[in-house]
Order: sequence, then structure tokens, then C-alpha cells
Amino acid sequence: MSDFTTKAVNSIRVLAVDTVAKANSGHPGAPMGMAPAAHILFSQLKTNPANPAWINRDRFVLSNGHAVALLYVMLHLLGYPISIQDLKNFRQLDSKTPGHPESETPGIDVTTGPLGQGVSNAIGLAIAQANFAAKYNKPNFTISDNYTYTFFGDGCMMEGVASESCSLAGHLQLGNLIAFYDDNKISIDGSTNIAFSEDVTKRLESYGWEVLHVANADTDYQGLSDAIAKAKLSKNKPTCIKMTTTIGYGSLNQGTAGVHGSPLKPDDIAQLKEKFGFDPTQSFTVEQDVYDYYATVAAKGAKANAEWDNLFDAYAQEYPEEAEEISRRLSGKLPENWEKLLPVYTSADKALASRKMSEVVLSKLEQDLPELLGGSADLTPSNLTRWPDAVDFQPPSTGLGDYSGRYIRYGVREHGMGAIMNGIAAFGANYKAYSGTFLNFVSYASGALRLSALSGHPVVWVATHDSIGLGEDGPTHQPIETLAHFRAIPNLMVWRPADGNEVSAAYKVSLESTQTPSVIALTRQNLPQLENSSIEKASRGGYVVYDTKDARLILAATGSEVSLAIDSAKELSAAGIPTRVVSLPDFFTFDKQSHDYKKSILPDGIPVISIEVMSTYGWGKYAHAHIGLDHFGASAPAAALFKKFGFTTEAVVEKAKKVDAFYAGKSVLSRLDTPF
Amino acid sequence: MSDFTTKAVNSIRVLAVDTVAKANSGHPGAPMGMAPAAHILFSQLKTNPANPAWINRDRFVLSNGHAVALLYVMLHLLGYPISIQDLKNFRQLDSKTPGHPESETPGIDVTTGPLGQGVSNAIGLAIAQANFAAKYNKPNFTISDNYTYTFFGDGCMMEGVASESCSLAGHLQLGNLIAFYDDNKISIDGSTNIAFSEDVTKRLESYGWEVLHVANADTDYQGLSDAIAKAKLSKNKPTCIKMTTTIGYGSLNQGTAGVHGSPLKPDDIAQLKEKFGFDPTQSFTVEQDVYDYYATVAAKGAKANAEWDNLFDAYAQEYPEEAEEISRRLSGKLPENWEKLLPVYTSADKALASRKMSEVVLSKLEQDLPELLGGSADLTPSNLTRWPDAVDFQPPSTGLGDYSGRYIRYGVREHGMGAIMNGIAAFGANYKAYSGTFLNFVSYASGALRLSALSGHPVVWVATHDSIGLGEDGPTHQPIETLAHFRAIPNLMVWRPADGNEVSAAYKVSLESTQTPSVIALTRQNLPQLENSSIEKASRGGYVVYDTKDARLILAATGSEVSLAIDSAKELSAAGIPTRVVSLPDFFTFDKQSHDYKKSILPDGIPVISIEVMSTYGWGKYAHAHIGLDHFGASAPAAALFKKFGFTTEAVVEKAKKVDAFYAGKSVLSRLDTPF
Repeated sequence: MSDFTTKAVNSIRVLAVDTVAKANSGHPGAPMGMAPAAHILFSQLKTNPANPAWINRDRFVLSNGHAVALLYVMLHLLGYPISIQDLKNFRQLDSKTPGHPESETPGIDVTTGPLGQGVSNAIGLAIAQANFAAKYNKPNFTISDNYTYTFFGDGCMMEGVASESCSLAGHLQLGNLIAFYDDNKISIDGSTNIAFSEDVTKRLESYGWEVLHVANADTDYQGLSDAIAKAKLSKNKPTCIKMTTTIGYGSLNQGTAGVHGSPLKPDDIAQLKEKFGFDPTQSFTVEQDVYDYYATVAAKGAKANAEWDNLFDAYAQEYPEEAEEISRRLSGKLPENWEKLLPVYTSADKALASRKMSEVVLSKLEQDLPELLGGSADLTPSNLTRWPDAVDFQPPSTGLGDYSGRYIRYGVREHGMGAIMNGIAAFGANYKAYSGTFLNFVSYASGALRLSALSGHPVVWVATHDSIGLGEDGPTHQPIETLAHFRAIPNLMVWRPADGNEVSAAYKVSLESTQTPSVIALTRQNLPQLENSSIEKASRGGYVVYDTKDARLILAATGSEVSLAIDSAKELSAAGIPTRVVSLPDFFTFDKQSHDYKKSILPDGIPVISIEVMSTYGWGKYAHAHIGLDHFGASAPAAALFKKFGFTTEAVVEKAKKVDAFYAGKSVLSRLDTPF
Repeated sequence: MSDFTTKAVNSIRVLAVDTVAKANSGHPGAPMGMAPAAHILFSQLKTNPANPAWINRDRFVLSNGHAVALLYVMLHLLGYPISIQDLKNFRQLDSKTPGHPESETPGIDVTTGPLGQGVSNAIGLAIAQANFAAKYNKPNFTISDNYTYTFFGDGCMMEGVASESCSLAGHLQLGNLIAFYDDNKISIDGSTNIAFSEDVTKRLESYGWEVLHVANADTDYQGLSDAIAKAKLSKNKPTCIKMTTTIGYGSLNQGTAGVHGSPLKPDDIAQLKEKFGFDPTQSFTVEQDVYDYYATVAAKGAKANAEWDNLFDAYAQEYPEEAEEISRRLSGKLPENWEKLLPVYTSADKALASRKMSEVVLSKLEQDLPELLGGSADLTPSNLTRWPDAVDFQPPSTGLGDYSGRYIRYGVREHGMGAIMNGIAAFGANYKAYSGTFLNFVSYASGALRLSALSGHPVVWVATHDSIGLGEDGPTHQPIETLAHFRAIPNLMVWRPADGNEVSAAYKVSLESTQTPSVIALTRQNLPQLENSSIEKASRGGYVVYDTKDARLILAATGSEVSLAIDSAKELSAAGIPTRVVSLPDFFTFDKQSHDYKKSILPDGIPVISIEVMSTYGWGKYAHAHIGLDHFGASAPAAALFKKFGFTTEAVVEKAKKVDAFYAGKSVLSRLDTPF
């Protein structure tokens, strides 16, 4: 390719180096090594800086997110609202250019950084695209055909979450996914040969990927370009372009861990600029022809976007229903009155496991909510996440489903599933990704879950078998710390519904959420339908579900313990200790209510006892005493366990009496009142 | 092979089926499919039921732990203390035979069940064996040469944690590891072809494994036996014996998901017994010749153990120092006075990052504690987990170290690392496994961490970059919920030391622990040495680190916030609000102190304000008001972040004054007093 290509590539390298040096913090090596791939790829990226949300844009995910200086440089060149000043503010307080990619910055499709997540997100993006295309494309109307590209490094490939996702991507034959593996053979500890001697090509091939190799990706621009072209021909396999690069290409320390995570020294930067034909006395300068070149790329993207707009107008003529649905989904709105589909229960309705009531909700919603894209980590018959007659999301060649299917067989891959859900949510089009596993195994996906919360992806975890109530499988499967863990994550709803109306409420609030993910904890065992529950009340996160005049004790419970609390309260009230029961299905939602409302539920002067069959850690924010399980569970039938561990009316009443006696004559402040 | 082999195999199948049926809960299919492999393997297992702790016994890990009925049957046949009555109590309260393998049961080497963990534990066991052998074997004195065997299924292979561990095992060339892959092509959702179409053989080969295939492992006993023999010849590669089996072999529903997780129906059991030549009216019967056969296996194991005892006696003559060290280690004791090696600081000593002080501890201890076996997930220069001149644990052929080395280059594989540490701890010989990553990324290993706690493996996580104090890397790397998560796990210490003496205390208590794992959270940034800290005081988990006469306010803090609390207390005291500061480096240890001691630290009548630069969730157990971070962090230099988020003396003093005013005239109960 031309000298101009070299110049553009080196301009990217130098600008990334300046960015990291100015911050005196960051990672110059990977941007320098991947600059050629970035230039070649972004030259043909379908992207419109004037409309970063365009649904048919190509997606780009920087899975090795520490190389973010490269991405900021590319977005700057393309004309996204990242200025030279923003580059100079790299990693500074309140800048647009934080230390890892954050999706708040326009042009950044996914928040990345924790290794292995980004490539998994990219697989989610590709799944969503395949589903969207299969659902809405019509003859002569290719509404959706974008590619998803991702860059990842050795670190990503070492992470299990990437293994899980890549194996699934191969199974799903995602030809719309093109991944660039930065094979630079360096990680923080030094040469990758100290820990990572596997054959990555062979491994990806074993998953069903196409793997291409650009042996000298430092300068073989044509090779990179050819590889992309070839990858696009691979319609039934995801492609990995393994590009062998030199980390920190051009630095005096190129090819070593020394250029990974520290800025280049001034003399090194000087020699680099000189070597590349730049003025070593200048920083943050880009020649006009490079800007001009990228302006033509952006213009091509804008033109493609305009053509797509026209196509969509014509589509709307031909397929008004589909177009309306697409428009609704692009606006991020659910269908009007969708919540009327949610089942409502009375106490006359029969007891059911809340996992079963969750299945009823999904079955009621699926037809009206085409954005529901569900699945399970190989526990479908346990999680009950699949509505009757759901079509599996599968490559048509398998004969097991097709890409318009909305049920994903994730396999036993919880972490990959979580990261893929984030990618599906990031695609847009109002995708509501949900998926199931046992509550205890959502923890396997902790890394992805906190990124859902940080990125504001409103995904839903259907987390069944939510306590020792799962019984015989025993302590390896019984969550204890899990709810505390999740409740401590900012911007995460953690629902634990007590009956059918509360299950409906959990789905109502979760699906209406646009920025907050949810975990919905559900039982294996049956729960009675409560007398005083309602979707409306439960949607506030906490409410009085049983009351007694002049209550002097409150039992605050969630999920399967609410009916136990009500039984106990009745007994206590009869025994002369008037007792109220508060159901707290979601702390996050309850905390957002007005102070007055919350105080009406948990007022001053009344001691509160929490009842929840797992760790009491954290309940101190509402309750003065706790009935819980601050140790691991055991293997036995559920009823035997509840009895053994003191979750019976008798045991609760006994403890409640102790609380009543303890606080007699003492002034009791509501835990809701705090000095600041 | 003989008819007897068939009879023995079918006896195992039938007994496992009876066990599951009696419990009316459990998994019959996998035991039935893997019975041939179990019989062939256990026939040659070096195991001594009279001495389950024998250090040179072969290890066996059932990674697909749901097949535990098989393991109980094998232990029963071998003469381990599992009776027919215990089999009849399968999955019942307080039985020896819980629903998944738990290491409290003699003969069970590791607690398993959560998929992917067991195979990783096995790799840890193999690492420990290789290290133990390299350290202590001498010419003519092969003290250690046991194999580690594991059975795993499709579910394990789908889990990322297994990918991480298996890749590392290949790199480490662990010829002492032999894994049996139960290729039965069925998972809970049905045929594995719905989610798992990868080529497992090719994948394991890509990691550097030897893979053998027994195409008909339902009946090809000779093939299984030959495969084991061949695997033992593979000295520089772990071997996987892929055995194609029929899940539920013999059942009317064999080969389907129907036999995976539910007991066989009575008529199915009847036809099975008849088909196999057993009396369908009998249950839980084993013919004497099968017992006799396994008695000879156990006798062989006892003989091998006795020979080893003799060998060790002779070894002790020749190598008294090594023998003494081995004996000490086998007794589970640290060297006498080892704690004198721990560094002690005064306030005159210079400020250091606590990660650096951790490095000092490791450097002081390593020579006297040969059981220290450390590592890092590719963050060695950040975690500072490697003492100077440490030898890497590496295959000698790499030229990068040898198996006597005690520093493991785990690669970016946190979950695998955690599970491997559990395996190392399970080996015995007092191995003290520790390893490093950023605190935030310990969460990737949640699945393994909770199993450390459940199993009582006293492993140590060196968790650096423990807050927004890591600065520029930003919110993707900054823990918020992490300490709450870990503190809610039963039987887990979560240290967050404030200075050098507290770092020493954290290591002292962690390394002395025999049943409780630890996470030690350490700073990237410097911390001053405190005036009133000591190893002794900090070893109680909480103590008064700064006091003022007639204190009417307490600031309770951990780690980097303790010095901030002291500065704030000084200012408050000077301003007429006498203030105490309590350092709480570990809640778990503090909670174990006497009530009187704890009340002396946090007495009635004084409001407590917690200060910790992450989620306040859970602090209600000690504190009445909280200064924390109930939202995600940001990317900027650390000092800018502490200021932005209110972690300055000025901001703390202002909030403390509000607390003082709020509680003026109110009666304040210590949060330590509870009604039950």
C-alpha cells in the first residue's frame, strides 16, 4: 500500500503515544502494535459520527481495553466529538477519555477493560444482529447487515469467559463476527511463553472458527486488508484474524513488557517521531491529509446511513407493521399497555414455585415483546426460562432452530452468558436479554454482572433455586452470600419476590428499566399467594403485606420467608405482641422511594427483625435484629433444612419475643434516618 | 476382560441406582455411564482406606460432582467408612453422603459440584505433587510419585474455569495428571449438540495435552485399562482419556437427558437388574466376590502405604533435615517462632504501599516456609507477589524454572488460579497457596473463592489495587461491592490492613489458619506507619488505634482510610468533639473476639461512623452512619478521586459533626448488642 498508509498508521501511533505520555499513565504498547489493523479496519468501518446510535452501523469492541488511547485517536480522526484537548485530558477527572473505554463516550459501543469481557460482548452484539436481521430483513430490504469487529489480546484469550463465549460463537456459526487477535506475545509478566504456550489457532478452530494469519501485521497493510475481505466471505463461521505484531512498534523497548503499561520516556518518543518522519518537538499534531482521509471515511458512513434511512422509508411502505415495531424498538419503548399482560393473582390461586410463576410471565409476554431474547446456562428445565413452543436461536443448518429464534442455548457457560447479554443489550433495538441459572451460579458471572451495572445494560438474570430451599444438592449449590454481594453492587436491582404478584412486579420494573440490570431470585419450592400483595405495591420495592393495629414489632422478609413472617406475625399478634410484616422484594427500588413513604413502612419506635434464609450481612440498614444463615447450608430435603436452621414459625416467634423483650423501654430509631 | 469385570461394573451401576432411588433425588445417569472407568481405575488406585491422609496416595477428584453416588459406592466397596446404611441415607440431613462430594467425608479429596472446579482442583493437586516431589525426592528415595485422577463431563468442559486451568496444565506439562472425560453427549437441556459442538480433543491438544480415546467405554474394559497405561507413559503432558459412554447405560432411557437428574423409575430399575443378572426384588446388595475383590485393592494400598513408611524411615536416616521438614509439614504446623520473621514497624518508618509491605513479608518468610507456593494472574510487577530471586514453577524443559520453584505464572486466569489454589491446599503437606490479582478481579474467581471457604482451604489472595486509590484505570477496575461480597461469605477472612504492622498481622493470622481462607486487600498508594498499631492488636481484627479521653464519637475505618480517620479525629478532638478511631482490619477475626473485648472497642453511648472508600453495605453491623462509596468510581489520579468523593479530612470532619449533632441527647446502643 501507499506511503500515505504508512504515514496514517504512524500518525495514529504517535498520537496515541503523546496521549499516554501527557497523562503520564496508560498503555502505549498495544496501540502502537495495533495501529495498522485499526487504520485498515476503520478505513472501511461503516460508521457515522453524526449518528453514533445508527442501528446498522458496524460495531467495534476493544476487548483489550487498556489500549483505549488507540480508540480515542481513531474516534478523534473520524470526527467523533473527541478533540485534541480531550486526548490531552486522557485519564483525568471528568474527562471524556477515561482510562478504559466507557460507553458514555459517543462512538464507544461497549465499556471494556476487564479482560475477556469485550470479545464476549462482541459475540452478544453479533447474536443480536443475526436475530434482528432474521426477524426483519425482507427480500430486497436488508435492514440489518452490519459486522461486529473486536480487537483482543493474549490476556483476553487466557480468560475463561472468552473461552466460553468463543466456543458458543463457533457453535452459533456467527459469520458476522470478525475478531482481531493481537498476537504480540507479551503480557505484564513478560513473554507469554511463561504461562501461555497453547496453540490459539488450533483452539479457535476446535470451536469452529475460521482463523487467518497476518504474519507481519506491523507493516503488512495489504495482508490485513486481504484478511478482512476473506473474513467477510466466511458466512458460517466467526473469523479470527491472528495478527502477529510488535508491541510498542517503533519504541526503543518494542517487543518487551516495558512498553505495556507505562508511558514512553521523552527520549524514546523523540527518536520514535524522528524515525517515523515527525517533528520531535511537536506533540498532538496530525497532518491535514490524515484528517482529510478520515473525513472521507466518515462521509462514506454518513452516506450509508442516509441510504439506510431511505431504505427504511421504503420498507415502511411495504412492511408497515414491521417498520412500526422497529421504530418502537429503536425509540426504546415497550408496547403500550404491555404491563396488562402480566398475570395477577389472588390468595385463592394455588401455591406455585416462583420459578414457575416466572415461566408464566415469560409465556404471557413473549408474543408482544419481540425484543425478549432469552436463554439459560443448560438449566432450562430447572430455570423454566423457555416459553412453550419457543424457537431456539440456532444456525439453520443445525435443524435445531434459526436465527429468528429467541431462545439461546448457552450451555454451562454462566460468565460468557452474562457478558453476551451485555453485548445483546448494547446492540440497541430495545433488546431485553434475560437468562437463567441457579442463583448461586450467577456468581460465576460476577465479572460480567458488575459491568452490566456499570454500563447500565438492563439485562435480567432469572436466578432460580434461590436458597437452601433447593434442598438435596447441598451447600455447594446453596447461595448464602449471594444477595449481599449483589445488593452491594451499585445500580443493580436484586428482586426476591414472595408470590405471583411480586414476580409480576419484578418483571414489570425490570423490563421497564432502561439503565439498571436485575437479578430475580426465584424458588424451586412452592410459595402461597399472599392476601395483600399487588403488582403496584411490590413495584415500590417494599410495602406492608400484613399489619396489626399498634404494631410494636416488624418482621421484614423477602421471597420464601414472607409467608413464614406472616404466619409468625399472626401468632405473635395473637400472643399479645402486635406485629407487622414488611415484604422487601427489592432494596434498590425501595431505597428510591420517598423518605416519607419508606418511614411509613419502617417507622420510628418499632424494632425490625429481618428474616431471610441467607447471610444477614447488610440487613442492618433496615433491621435491628436478624434471622438468617451466616454459615453454609447442607444437603437434605428442603423442609428438613428449614427446620434445622430455625426457619419455622415456632423458632421465629421465639426469637421475635426476645427482640420484643430486648427493646422494651428502649427508644428505637428507624434505621432509615441517618445524619447525612 | 473377565465376566467378573462385567459383574463388578454392573454391581457398581446397580448400587448407584439404588442409592439415588432410595433418596428419590440425585443423578443416576453419569454413575451408570462412568462405572466401567471407575472400576478399572479404582482397581489400580493407590489408596489406603485405613489412612485416608497418606500423602503419597493417588488423588481422585470427581469434577462432575453430581455423579457422587458413584464415588460413595466406590468408597464403600474399598472399605472406607461408608456403609450400606450411609448409602441409604444419601442426601439426607446430617448424613455422610450429601448430594455432592464434600471433603469432610473420608476418602473424598476435594469438595466438588459446581462445574469446572474439580478438574481445576485436580490440576492444583498435580502441581503440588510435582513441587513436593521435586523438593524432596532423592536418588533411590521416591517419596512422592502419586497420580492425580479426575473424572469430568461436558458441563465441566463448557465452564471457563476449566479452560483456564487446562490451558495452564498443558503449559506446565503435568504428566502426573490423568483426566477422564465422560463424553456422553448429554446435558440437562438435552443433546450437547444444541450448545457444544466444539472438538474437545483438538481443544485439549491445542493446550498441550495428550488425548486418548476409548470409543466404547460402556464395555471396553481393556481399552480403558490400556488407556490408563498409556497415559502413565506420557511424562510431559497431562493426559485426557476421552471415553465415549452412554449416560444411564442399561436404563430404558439410556442416552437421554431423562436419566441425568432424576431417579430411575421402579420398573426401569427392575428391568435393569434383571438384564444385568441381579435379583430385581433386592436392593443394596453386593455379592461377596465383589467385596473380596475390592478388599484386595485396599490391601494393595495398605501394603504400598507400609512400604512408603519404611522408605520414609530410611529417608530420614539419609536426609534428616528434609525428613524433619516433611514431618513438620505433614503435622500441619508452621516452623516454631516463624512469626518472629514478620516485619515490625514504628511510626518513624517510611510510608509504603501496603502491596509493597506485603512483598516485604513474603521476602522475609519464603526461606523458612517451604510450603509457601505463590503466584499471580499476570500482575506480578503490580501485585508484588514474587520475592527476589524466586524460582518459577515451570517444566524444566522450558529453561524458565523447574518444578521445585515456588512461583507460579498463572497467566490472566483468576478463576482457574483460585480453583488451582484449592487443589494445592487439598494436597496437604501444609501447602500455603497464595496468589495475586487486583482486588476487583478476585470477583472473577467467586466460584472458587466460596469453595475455599466451604471446604476450609486456607488459601490467601493477595488482592492489590484495592480501591479508587488505583486511580487512572477507572471504574472498570475499582472495587465497590467487593469487600461486602467477601465479608458475607462464611468462613472467609477479609483483611484490609492500614499499615505495615497490620500487613504483618494479616499474614500472621492467615498463615496460622488451618481452615479459613483469606483475602488481603492492599493498596497501590503509600500509607503512613501508624503510631499505635501493632501486630498483636491488629491480630484481633479490630482495636483502638487512636483514642481521646471521654470520646463521644468513633470513626471506624479500614486500610487506607485509617490514617484519614486519625487525622480527622485529631481535628474533631481539637474542635471539642473528642473522637476515637477504631481500625477494623478484619471483621471475621474481630467477630470471634469476646463480647467484652468487642464492647470495649465499640461501647454503648458513642455513635460510630464507618469510613471505607467503597460500598457501605454491611457496615450497619458496627456503625450508625457511613462514609463510603455507594456508586462506581472514576478514572483520574487517585488524589483527585479521594477529593471528589469526599475522602478528605475536611469532608470527614463535616460529616462527623452532623453525626454528633444528630445523636446529641439520643440514647445510642452499640450495634454489637443484639437480642439473640
